[in-house]
Amino acid sequence: MSEVIATYRLFDRNGNFEKKAEGIALGLTIGSWTDLPHLEQEQLKKHKGGVVSIQETGRETAEGKEADITIAYPAANFSADLPAILVTVFGKLSLDGVIRLMDLDFSHDLAKRFPGPKYGVEGIRERTGVYGRPLVMSIFKGVIGRDLSYMEKQLRAQLEGGIDIVKDDEILFDNKLTSFEERLKLGQQVIAESGKKALYAVNLTGRTSDLKEKARRGIELGATAYLFNVFAYGLDVLQELAEDRDIPVPIMAHPAVSGAFTSAPYHGFSTELMLGKLVRMAGADFTLFPSPYGSVALEREAALKTAEMALEESIYKQTFPVPSAGIHPGLVPVLFEDFGIDSIINAGGGVHGHPNGAAGGGRAFRQAVDAVTAGRTLEEAAKNREDLRAALELWGTGK
Amino acid sequence: MSEVIATYRLFDRNGNFEKKAEGIALGLTIGSWTDLPHLEQEQLKKHKGGVVSIQETGRETAEGKEADITIAYPAANFSADLPAILVTVFGKLSLDGVIRLMDLDFSHDLAKRFPGPKYGVEGIRERTGVYGRPLVMSIFKGVIGRDLSYMEKQLRAQLEGGIDIVKDDEILFDNKLTSFEERLKLGQQVIAESGKKALYAVNLTGRTSDLKEKARRGIELGATAYLFNVFAYGLDVLQELAEDRDIPVPIMAHPAVSGAFTSAPYHGFSTELMLGKLVRMAGADFTLFPSPYGSVALEREAALKTAEMALEESIYKQTFPVPSAGIHPGLVPVLFEDFGIDSIINAGGGVHGHPNGAAGGGRAFRQAVDAVTAGRTLEEAAKNREDLRAALELWGTGK
Ligand SMILES: [Mg+2]
Ligand SMILES: [Mg+2]
Repeated sequence: MSEVIATYRLFDRNGNFEKKAEGIALGLTIGSWTDLPHLEQEQLKKHKGGVVSIQETGRETAEGKEADITIAYPAANFSADLPAILVTVFGKLSLDGVIRLMDLDFSHDLAKRFPGPKYGVEGIRERTGVYGRPLVMSIFKGVIGRDLSYMEKQLRAQLEGGIDIVKDDEILFDNKLTSFEERLKLGQQVIAESGKKALYAVNLTGRTSDLKEKARRGIELGATAYLFNVFAYGLDVLQELAEDRDIPVPIMAHPAVSGAFTSAPYHGFSTELMLGKLVRMAGADFTLFPSPYGSVALEREAALKTAEMALEESIYKQTFPVPSAGIHPGLVPVLFEDFGIDSIINAGGGVHGHPNGAAGGGRAFRQAVDAVTAGRTLEEAAKNREDLRAALELWGTGK
Repeated sequence: MSEVIATYRLFDRNGNFEKKAEGIALGLTIGSWTDLPHLEQEQLKKHKGGVVSIQETGRETAEGKEADITIAYPAANFSADLPAILVTVFGKLSLDGVIRLMDLDFSHDLAKRFPGPKYGVEGIRERTGVYGRPLVMSIFKGVIGRDLSYMEKQLRAQLEGGIDIVKDDEILFDNKLTSFEERLKLGQQVIAESGKKALYAVNLTGRTSDLKEKARRGIELGATAYLFNVFAYGLDVLQELAEDRDIPVPIMAHPAVSGAFTSAPYHGFSTELMLGKLVRMAGADFTLFPSPYGSVALEREAALKTAEMALEESIYKQTFPVPSAGIHPGLVPVLFEDFGIDSIINAGGGVHGHPNGAAGGGRAFRQAVDAVTAGRTLEEAAKNREDLRAALELWGTGK
């Protein structure tokens, strides 16, 4: 059957989950059932939501007993777009007390209506020529109020250090000092001069209906990737960018604003659903999410599940997981263990704060990656690798 | 100065709010300050975020001491669109632990960049010819899986009952049985035949970049208003619809999905900011939000503040507040007291569940409104008003 199955986590002081679940399944579809004449039941049955399962977790929380319930919504009720699906499964219901949407499962025919990443892990490896190791990414630092020459220095240093992908800060918008166009031209020039196949993800910003045209114009100026604040715009906007054949570069989904609906324990959406599954369906080639290591970290389980949903077997290409924040070279072995080779090691301070500058920071990361790939410890590798040694001295190893 | 001032509610076990506030003001703007050479400080000063105030609330919560802090962000840092502003003030920060964005204040020059409602309270009164009382609105009921004749009967009954505005269910998308076009044609015909100036808000749904064209096509078919699931799309998408001169009908913002980021106590956005202030700025002529009376109700204070932000003196036209859910005719005096004359009384079950059908439900609401407007009690008015009497018998009076 063509449907979407939603998993909710809900809470009840009396553990009366059957009634709640039935109320949701009917209330969000045909409204009523038992009182209907047989003929109407026949007519409506293919539109009726159904309770699939009710599973008490056994946890007693501040909000009462906890249970995960799953409800099936027939695709006959909605158009095949994420706004319609989100309104159906968590529209009114999101306003209905203490409830969290944990997961969505799409039947095959419905899933096929979504594009998934245009390039994905394989395509990005082809574009960067990097195989057999995580890619290393870094972020411009402190560029607000600075001119293009400031960014140019940073970009050169990062590429010199062996960084594979450089991204804009998500709070850098179109501005007079470093306009979208000027940044794109800078990127094309500096990457060409470096002789590397690096990517520079420029922040695609502005009014919603200008984005496609702007992205296409950027392609003519040599854009190699776009950063996109999908949760400030909408998942469907990401999807439209991903579906556009005239925007033939990977798109990086930034999690800005998503904490507003993923961070509370008993409300909103699970992080893995939003930053793992849905951004992948909608077409993100990369998904950034909080790493489990920073000072304010995502729970390890949620971070791992997010990466899993970005990579797990599906009809879509794989989305590169990018656990971000609090990353320094000493964490590389932990990152390998937690996220494996098909992930991106992304740092800001851990690159720019290196005693030998951003180039040194880049080199330290690449040295750490090479060491772990070769099965050596960082300490061992650092003996004759000056940049890695300096990084370990400054930031230590491990979490 | 051109800026946006954000008010956050945050929590700290040690009450160390100064440091947190300073960290936010710098971290979300220029990154660092005290270590910068004087010349760079001069260059960056107009981009530097600043702490405006820190106010401990005196409440001790499960998350520690509570404080409201306000931070000013120079408009030089972002483009004048809501995605850029939300990413600036609550992008990364939304992921940064326990914090809630309570309010945003825009300097006049920045506020002017946003349209506000095209029609607002005044324009909607003109279009409906209703003055001196709240408008009465109702919702189609149980229309999923039903054909057009089913909707036609409901629409006729609602208009017969004196309903001023009928709206689609937000979960009714474009579908074979009752397509967008067919619903519009039905609306035009039934309203014309009724001889009334009622509005029918048809749900504007589909892919983001098709919405404008679809809305314009609907105008040719006689659309009188649109319902829009703004939080499934994005505030900027609402704004683009509101700015489009070829969509000359009022837009009703539905709160579907917004509970995901307004319902948790210590995370996300305040309801009044999202459903009051920002939808108004972006151009909603009506804003629906949970009433404080239903089984699962919005706190009274948040509901009142939402209505206040929709109506308060500003450079924009006023947005009609529509407190929704759990409304029956016996609540009309309470609705008057809480929301005043410039509000919309909106009911689903309270219209359709009336013993005399939807027409009876409509009449009962109008009789209740007339009674309160004339300074009479419902009980008094019900003596010679059969529909009102039946409603009070069924649902009682008050909350
Ligand atoms: Mg950043
Ligand atoms: Mg509804």
